[in-house]
Amino acid sequence: MKTYLECYPCFLKQALSAARRAGGSEEQQLSVIRETMKILDVLDPGAIPPEIARHVHSLVRKEISSVDPYRDAKKQSTEQALALLPDLRELIDNSSDPMDTAIRLAIAGNIMDLGVMEDFGDLQETINRVLKQPFAIDHTKELISLLETADHLLYLGDNTGETVFDRALIERISIPVTYAVKGSPVLNDATEQDAIEAGLHLVAALLSNGSDAPGTLLELCSGEFKEAYAKAPLVIAKGQGNYESLSNAGEKVFCLLQVKCPVIGEDIGAPAGSIICRRS
Amino acid sequence: MKTYLECYPCFLKQALSAARRAGGSEEQQLSVIRETMKILDVLDPGAIPPEIARHVHSLVRKEISSVDPYRDAKKQSTEQALALLPDLRELIDNSSDPMDTAIRLAIAGNIMDLGVMEDFGDLQETINRVLKQPFAIDHTKELISLLETADHLLYLGDNTGETVFDRALIERISIPVTYAVKGSPVLNDATEQDAIEAGLHLVAALLSNGSDAPGTLLELCSGEFKEAYAKAPLVIAKGQGNYESLSNAGEKVFCLLQVKCPVIGEDIGAPAGSIICRRS
Repeated sequence: MKTYLECYPCFLKQALSAARRAGGSEEQQLSVIRETMKILDVLDPGAIPPEIARHVHSLVRKEISSVDPYRDAKKQSTEQALALLPDLRELIDNSSDPMDTAIRLAIAGNIMDLGVMEDFGDLQETINRVLKQPFAIDHTKELISLLETADHLLYLGDNTGETVFDRALIERISIPVTYAVKGSPVLNDATEQDAIEAGLHLVAALLSNGSDAPGTLLELCSGEFKEAYAKAPLVIAKGQGNYESLSNAGEKVFCLLQVKCPVIGEDIGAPAGSIICRRS
Repeated sequence: MKTYLECYPCFLKQALSAARRAGGSEEQQLSVIRETMKILDVLDPGAIPPEIARHVHSLVRKEISSVDPYRDAKKQSTEQALALLPDLRELIDNSSDPMDTAIRLAIAGNIMDLGVMEDFGDLQETINRVLKQPFAIDHTKELISLLETADHLLYLGDNTGETVFDRALIERISIPVTYAVKGSPVLNDATEQDAIEAGLHLVAALLSNGSDAPGTLLELCSGEFKEAYAKAPLVIAKGQGNYESLSNAGEKVFCLLQVKCPVIGEDIGAPAGSIICRRS
């Protein structure tokens, strides 16, 4: 997905939020805003949002602190989601269509995104909504059928906490699953450490993508990841960042997400608040 | 009020919105965003938001079109509010405390602000809410008492459409009123033409402030306005832009507004959604 003009103010907002989370002084925050404006000023017209966000967050680490600014928020998200795991499993077990319910819950978990808003509101409300809401784009039947016939699945994670919802879905998947995480911290995206705290290593092989972009920019990923991606017969790509990266990546990729910003809504053709299972 | 770091992304958003309303091409919109970033980059740390907004909107007029980009939206706002005028008068007439009700309605009208959001939602809902809602800052008693003893009032208007709500309040004020409007179009702020379309000339003497800032920056106002301001024993200043300009202007100034952004909320000490009658 291209970068829309609406993304410009949003990057400034995200830069300020990250600078504050990193404990930056007022001067450092201003400096991050100014440097972000420089990045935006020389933006390659073909740049996609995760490329820019990657620069912005690397700037915050350089200007303020190399310590992960989202670490505390991420730990809290994982704890919050782990407390719900028994309920998620029960919802799936008691469902008349367990796989549909598991996919919906994985999409519900996608609300745990600290890139769009400062907090993600009431998780239980989101779960209730997403369990009942019609899909705006619904390729779940094709996905469920491929999950029975493919010999393995590459699952591209997104936010920390959402990982636990992914875990509940993966527990229902009978083929082997590789769960890809970010190579370094960026936003509240899950790294290997975050995924282990959510117990993903118990249900999938973990694989770092070797990159610090909040999405999956193949050209920046490690050779090992690129090979795994190329070989995968089926890919689940979670969240907005992965949609921005892989919306045209071909039919083995299924994007599962909640539309949380109007720009993605315009690109995907469904309003903010929609739930999506879209074959690329 | 100083410019907070949160205002930076908001100015970019406002620049893009104004560029689109002015009918700018994608290239022109991008150019306006880039020029706005240049303005923000060299921002005087002491600059207040209406000064910056003034530059941004003058940029849009220069880069795209000198025609008022908010003209259609303003005409529509005035028509919408005029349709409510009989109801507003009835609400005031039937109230057990007509002056309190008239002040509340003038504050309700302050929702008609196209600087914060692209549209201002349901007017009737806002009226119902503001009629019942407790004031977050309440100097109405002092204001009502001064409205009986001062020899005249200078009333600083804000948005077009809100003008009609101001008219309903002014109809209840027994001392002579001068209603100040912007010298040139900026955002959806009322100019003389907009005020006349709302019938303000029927209840007050109209006075241009001679400036194109979305607020009241005295140093940029005409000599005639400055003199009127200096002589006025009592001033009502409507809306966020006037609060940003005059929050420390002295005790003859009463700011009437709805808090529509969290930054003003932080500055004034009341959350977004609050209604305010504050003596400076």
